[in-house]
Amino acid sequence: MNSIIRDINLAPSGKQKIDWVRKNMPLLNAIEKEFSETKPFAGLKATVSVHLEAKTAYLAQVVAAGGASVCVTGSNPLSTQDDVAAGLSDSGVPVFAWYNSTAEEYNRHIEAALDHGPNLIIDDGGDLIHMVHTSRQDLLQNLWGGNEETTTGIVRLKAMEKQGALKIPMIAVNNAMCKFLFDNRYGTGQSVWDGINRTTNLIVAGKHVVVAGYGWCGKGIAMRAKGLGAKVVVTEVDPIKAMEAVMDGFTVLPMSEAAKIGDLFVTVTGCERVIYGEHFKVMKDGAIMCNAGHFDCEVYKPELESLAVEIKEQRKNITGYKMADGRWLNLLGEGRLVNLACGDGHPAEIMDMSFAVQALSLAYLAKNHDKLEKGKVIDVPAEIDARVAQMKLAAWGTKIDKLSPEQEKYLNSWG
Amino acid sequence: MNSIIRDINLAPSGKQKIDWVRKNMPLLNAIEKEFSETKPFAGLKATVSVHLEAKTAYLAQVVAAGGASVCVTGSNPLSTQDDVAAGLSDSGVPVFAWYNSTAEEYNRHIEAALDHGPNLIIDDGGDLIHMVHTSRQDLLQNLWGGNEETTTGIVRLKAMEKQGALKIPMIAVNNAMCKFLFDNRYGTGQSVWDGINRTTNLIVAGKHVVVAGYGWCGKGIAMRAKGLGAKVVVTEVDPIKAMEAVMDGFTVLPMSEAAKIGDLFVTVTGCERVIYGEHFKVMKDGAIMCNAGHFDCEVYKPELESLAVEIKEQRKNITGYKMADGRWLNLLGEGRLVNLACGDGHPAEIMDMSFAVQALSLAYLAKNHDKLEKGKVIDVPAEIDARVAQMKLAAWGTKIDKLSPEQEKYLNSWG
Amino acid sequence: MNSIIRDINLAPSGKQKIDWVRKNMPLLNAIEKEFSETKPFAGLKATVSVHLEAKTAYLAQVVAAGGASVCVTGSNPLSTQDDVAAGLSDSGVPVFAWYNSTAEEYNRHIEAALDHGPNLIIDDGGDLIHMVHTSRQDLLQNLWGGNEETTTGIVRLKAMEKQGALKIPMIAVNNAMCKFLFDNRYGTGQSVWDGINRTTNLIVAGKHVVVAGYGWCGKGIAMRAKGLGAKVVVTEVDPIKAMEAVMDGFTVLPMSEAAKIGDLFVTVTGCERVIYGEHFKVMKDGAIMCNAGHFDCEVYKPELESLAVEIKEQRKNITGYKMADGRWLNLLGEGRLVNLACGDGHPAEIMDMSFAVQALSLAYLAKNHDKLEKGKVIDVPAEIDARVAQMKLAAWGTKIDKLSPEQEKYLNSWG
Amino acid sequence: MNSIIRDINLAPSGKQKIDWVRKNMPLLNAIEKEFSETKPFAGLKATVSVHLEAKTAYLAQVVAAGGASVCVTGSNPLSTQDDVAAGLSDSGVPVFAWYNSTAEEYNRHIEAALDHGPNLIIDDGGDLIHMVHTSRQDLLQNLWGGNEETTTGIVRLKAMEKQGALKIPMIAVNNAMCKFLFDNRYGTGQSVWDGINRTTNLIVAGKHVVVAGYGWCGKGIAMRAKGLGAKVVVTEVDPIKAMEAVMDGFTVLPMSEAAKIGDLFVTVTGCERVIYGEHFKVMKDGAIMCNAGHFDCEVYKPELESLAVEIKEQRKNITGYKMADGRWLNLLGEGRLVNLACGDGHPAEIMDMSFAVQALSLAYLAKNHDKLEKGKVIDVPAEIDARVAQMKLAAWGTKIDKLSPEQEKYLNSWG
Repeated sequence: MNSIIRDINLAPSGKQKIDWVRKNMPLLNAIEKEFSETKPFAGLKATVSVHLEAKTAYLAQVVAAGGASVCVTGSNPLSTQDDVAAGLSDSGVPVFAWYNSTAEEYNRHIEAALDHGPNLIIDDGGDLIHMVHTSRQDLLQNLWGGNEETTTGIVRLKAMEKQGALKIPMIAVNNAMCKFLFDNRYGTGQSVWDGINRTTNLIVAGKHVVVAGYGWCGKGIAMRAKGLGAKVVVTEVDPIKAMEAVMDGFTVLPMSEAAKIGDLFVTVTGCERVIYGEHFKVMKDGAIMCNAGHFDCEVYKPELESLAVEIKEQRKNITGYKMADGRWLNLLGEGRLVNLACGDGHPAEIMDMSFAVQALSLAYLAKNHDKLEKGKVIDVPAEIDARVAQMKLAAWGTKIDKLSPEQEKYLNSWG
Repeated sequence: MNSIIRDINLAPSGKQKIDWVRKNMPLLNAIEKEFSETKPFAGLKATVSVHLEAKTAYLAQVVAAGGASVCVTGSNPLSTQDDVAAGLSDSGVPVFAWYNSTAEEYNRHIEAALDHGPNLIIDDGGDLIHMVHTSRQDLLQNLWGGNEETTTGIVRLKAMEKQGALKIPMIAVNNAMCKFLFDNRYGTGQSVWDGINRTTNLIVAGKHVVVAGYGWCGKGIAMRAKGLGAKVVVTEVDPIKAMEAVMDGFTVLPMSEAAKIGDLFVTVTGCERVIYGEHFKVMKDGAIMCNAGHFDCEVYKPELESLAVEIKEQRKNITGYKMADGRWLNLLGEGRLVNLACGDGHPAEIMDMSFAVQALSLAYLAKNHDKLEKGKVIDVPAEIDARVAQMKLAAWGTKIDKLSPEQEKYLNSWG
Repeated sequence: MNSIIRDINLAPSGKQKIDWVRKNMPLLNAIEKEFSETKPFAGLKATVSVHLEAKTAYLAQVVAAGGASVCVTGSNPLSTQDDVAAGLSDSGVPVFAWYNSTAEEYNRHIEAALDHGPNLIIDDGGDLIHMVHTSRQDLLQNLWGGNEETTTGIVRLKAMEKQGALKIPMIAVNNAMCKFLFDNRYGTGQSVWDGINRTTNLIVAGKHVVVAGYGWCGKGIAMRAKGLGAKVVVTEVDPIKAMEAVMDGFTVLPMSEAAKIGDLFVTVTGCERVIYGEHFKVMKDGAIMCNAGHFDCEVYKPELESLAVEIKEQRKNITGYKMADGRWLNLLGEGRLVNLACGDGHPAEIMDMSFAVQALSLAYLAKNHDKLEKGKVIDVPAEIDARVAQMKLAAWGTKIDKLSPEQEKYLNSWG
Repeated sequence: MNSIIRDINLAPSGKQKIDWVRKNMPLLNAIEKEFSETKPFAGLKATVSVHLEAKTAYLAQVVAAGGASVCVTGSNPLSTQDDVAAGLSDSGVPVFAWYNSTAEEYNRHIEAALDHGPNLIIDDGGDLIHMVHTSRQDLLQNLWGGNEETTTGIVRLKAMEKQGALKIPMIAVNNAMCKFLFDNRYGTGQSVWDGINRTTNLIVAGKHVVVAGYGWCGKGIAMRAKGLGAKVVVTEVDPIKAMEAVMDGFTVLPMSEAAKIGDLFVTVTGCERVIYGEHFKVMKDGAIMCNAGHFDCEVYKPELESLAVEIKEQRKNITGYKMADGRWLNLLGEGRLVNLACGDGHPAEIMDMSFAVQALSLAYLAKNHDKLEKGKVIDVPAEIDARVAQMKLAAWGTKIDKLSPEQEKYLNSWG
């Protein structure tokens, strides 16, 4: 296979980035070493579709070290970094992706990566899974199963499972405790603000920051907004989550009210059309919107564009939309994942945990694929979660207590 | 039935306390009104064993308003407030409890409350359930089932269920989202520090506060300790919870190390012997210990007493133990639940949510008892959780968004 | 002199309280030891008027250990603890104060303490200084000078100084860095919430807490309210402080707006009539007000009383005022300092710093009184501030860096 | 004058950046409008030496709008943005600066900007003032005075003043409340973490972050580190500041101890050699260092370089130094101001306040220069502070309370 990338000359910069994250991902280091010896993927083909920046490149290399023939595509047109793509390709892993691909190019890249004929896939948001269940069902025959990285992808898989449409076993990597409790909360929490701050160069303290969605990602974003001095407003559709937001000291409002007072909006619901026409009409001049959910449909761009009398780049990754009454509304990173479109994604140590779950789950799939029920969304085995946790504590050098036999007995008694 | 209480002359003070919480428990107000009309407990007998302060008294009155013949006992020797007991008794609900009961008195009071021959019970920690499954199995015949309030009680019930020892259906009130996400976290978080601060009159800021256990209660206690300016140290036996503590900015250590640096210790593990001999030996002079777990076995008093060369009250609710080397170690509230033994328990609005779940779950039991499997720990029905959440949002006047039909459809599609 | 106290039989309880704070005030321990040897007050008389709870009692004993003939009165009718007064009196220091004194009694107690004919005074809020400059000017002749503890007292002294009314040198203890940066911020911050929480037993998280005044005390109260999960609203008259509040993540409003949304109000401005008639009229049913400023004029009680159709105690230290439209407004501790009227005042370790400044400043006055300009408000000597800081760091066992000679030189060069 | 810049073709990018900050600096907008009418600098020449990014460019344009002939140079070799330099030059303001200048080039650029023969200067750190008092004393004759932006610059000016070396009046802009309380705390606090996060892509939560110096800048950096979930360690030489750090919940250590446990170090002391040889020897493998103080002498690079057996760029703006024992130590932005060398400096709205003080102080200088004492460091007039505060509150739409005449009287009375 020949890579389809922007410019192979960018490889040195990409390799430097990959080297940096390798130095900061001790769990993957250990797994890479183990895989090099045990070769869990010997003779197998794997296709990876994950936001193509340095951490993902390293994950692909770890899977390759395990004996797989790996190829990689992106999972969002704006999250692919061309230098990383070049560096990864130069290291021997074929890549099909470039930054700012058109919808057509993006699909072509996914298809090229699937042409590899994978036995295993790593998916992020469900674009691979969608294609092999629609236009490329021919690939299902050799496909043993795969992993899904995100909450959004799992919502889609669950819908497929319910409708009997899913044809292979898929491991819900997102639902591992070592993943969603850390990646979604602390990873998203920090990286979203990294993306916003470097893009806007505006103060967060004192601003009304509206966070749409108070799931694990939203909790992380709101927590860090508070840590930066913002007045946080939360919108929710779930009463329990709404109450948690209130008790965490935040103001809870419907979006129709929040739209009027917000200075900066972050959507992270996994749903569509969270901010739309009637909201655009009441927003303050200069309001800034961005999205941290998987798809770019949360801030509803078609309506924003149709309301605009002028559209103009305000600064790198900031698009300004001028309303008929003169107000400018600003959208970061085209409404795509702000931490990836306007930044480098999650911190390396966080992805180290998530990708350790990915790598070990993929090895589990390779070994157990014939015992797994097709068409099911499968939990990450508890022992993988436990192992990753132990590895992470060891990497920190953190020691914890152990239940004594007497304590174990106490906890199992009632007399 | 005649109440067994300290002094009926304390009734006016107790009634004032009950009136105050009634004014601050709008959910129970609404349920009281409804029950007065629907009489879900008409003709039934109920026994309540919950920490007997004002909120519990009001819960008992609400159940009584629903037509039940109710009687009440405490659930911890130090958490019963004699004036509240008198006020409740004076309002027509028999009470069997007093402050600082001996172990023998405490058991006698429980038995007296069970002599009522209840059809329904509300238990807190499992003392009622224990007695009806051991010395008073005669009561099982008329006992339709009950509710359990605490994590600890549910651990015991699950052990019974596993061993086939449980003979009635028990609803795990603690596991309702409207309960554990709020009561265990924000309720415990605030009330523990209320109890500690009023008892010690010492500064929290700058101190090393050791929180043993990072479950929902521990998370709340640690969060508020941080809010008060402490340097928080967490001890855990669960790797995932330990990692959460690290990422929340806390130091995680085994107790053997934490014991050396802690100024103030709070145990909240639900386990036994969390702080014991080897820890007492290395603690700093003046160290303060307290417990927020259900039983008083977390700080291991027998060993503390045997190590002491002198034992002396230092201030109300503070017992000082002098070690042979001259260090004084201090224990608050005899190692019993510090928020109840040294305070008034959880804030009223928090118990309003928990007790709304209690009241509605008890009505559910009354109506459906013959359909419920005996010997099972049962989840609170989702519609009760949803209803309590709606009531609480309404009480705050908080409005939230609603999924549109298009959004519902989006969330159920995958194409 | 014979003490004027409520009941000498309360002495054991008071002594226990004093013993407890003594164990937690290492700076005063060291100063007591030094004074016992150096006797800086040999042959002198001192009158102390400070909120009479255990820490103040110990301060009086430390001054007595320095050779002074000391007597003590309170500085607020509700902050005197009768058991502490008895315990202190029993230890040999005459006391003139009791809890809940009438205005007339309160003044009589102050006068009794001044009849001692002091050479030195320790004042808290300015009641001593007022009396010796008005009805008891006869005492000025022997009075060498004194210390003032509070921001409020210093505002009064500065007014006197400007008008030429002040006749003795007064040291502004409050303005020492070891005092106002710690006592006013962390001391008030914690103790106000201790007082509120133990008195109301209501949740703070999720509530709108209005803090009137964003000086050091207000900053501390707001910081801890945030730490407890409140949504904090600040009112201010100073634009700079208002901007700090905004940047700290708080909402800034005029009181007329804040009154409508607040659930709990704390005034701490040092000014009068901060919350009054027009505010009472728009407050929510059940709103709670309290004060942490020196005088009880911040929540304007005369207007509250005249608007009320019914006044009734709701719980210990909570007075309910029923408005004509049926709303109940609640006032804690009669609008007097809530941390003292409803609690035990600042944590011991904080007062250890403030009172170390008091004790050393008083010794400075004793030694240098003839060199000090009469009628002036004098700063605490920098060496006292430095010494207290060093003592406190040593008590914590905290080590810090030291500038090297090269660094000193660097900081003094410009080339 | 002809600009000395890298590449005029970068002007469009620079102009876009300047346009963006202009939209977010309402105070400078108002002052620009006023100056355009009043022309306070008509006929005068001004030289500006401030970190040359977009906000500074706009400040220069505002001064030019006031009638001055302005030219601009940088104030740090790594903080100049070449596109902004081009954009500013293209707008008609001569610029002498480029990114990554050598020491010789840097000095040449300063000299070129001074060749303009300014009547007024705006200095940042003291490089202009140093040159006109050493090699270019010929310029003093026409120089009426200037403003200094930083704490560091003022330390240098105070040293000059004390030694009688200062020959012109200099306004201490840094010491305005509208500047240091906001810029140094909230500006530095956010922008330092923006710079670190975008450069490292590593997690902050759970890390030991060592902040050297707990002045206003250090307080801001520590506060935001805590907000990001770090365990903060503070080093200090001042006992009072050290105690504040303890009470704010941080660990205080000497650098020799902090060096062993730190994962990430930020120096912000204004002093030299804060981290040096003995510290480098005990640091953890992978430790990251950066500086937020004015000069690049806080992390002592000469010793770091001499200890290194290999020096290698790890990622853009990260230099790795390999120690003889194999540990890699990382330095961000060559030890220069990390928020400027690795970012875009303070948020626009913060610089809006600081630069409003700059602009109004410069107009004050222009008007009053003949009344000001030469050789003195002068405070910003209180009315400028007050005016900027009012403008900022108005820009936010924040309303505050006003003292009534009765309250004013109360505060000035003592009777």
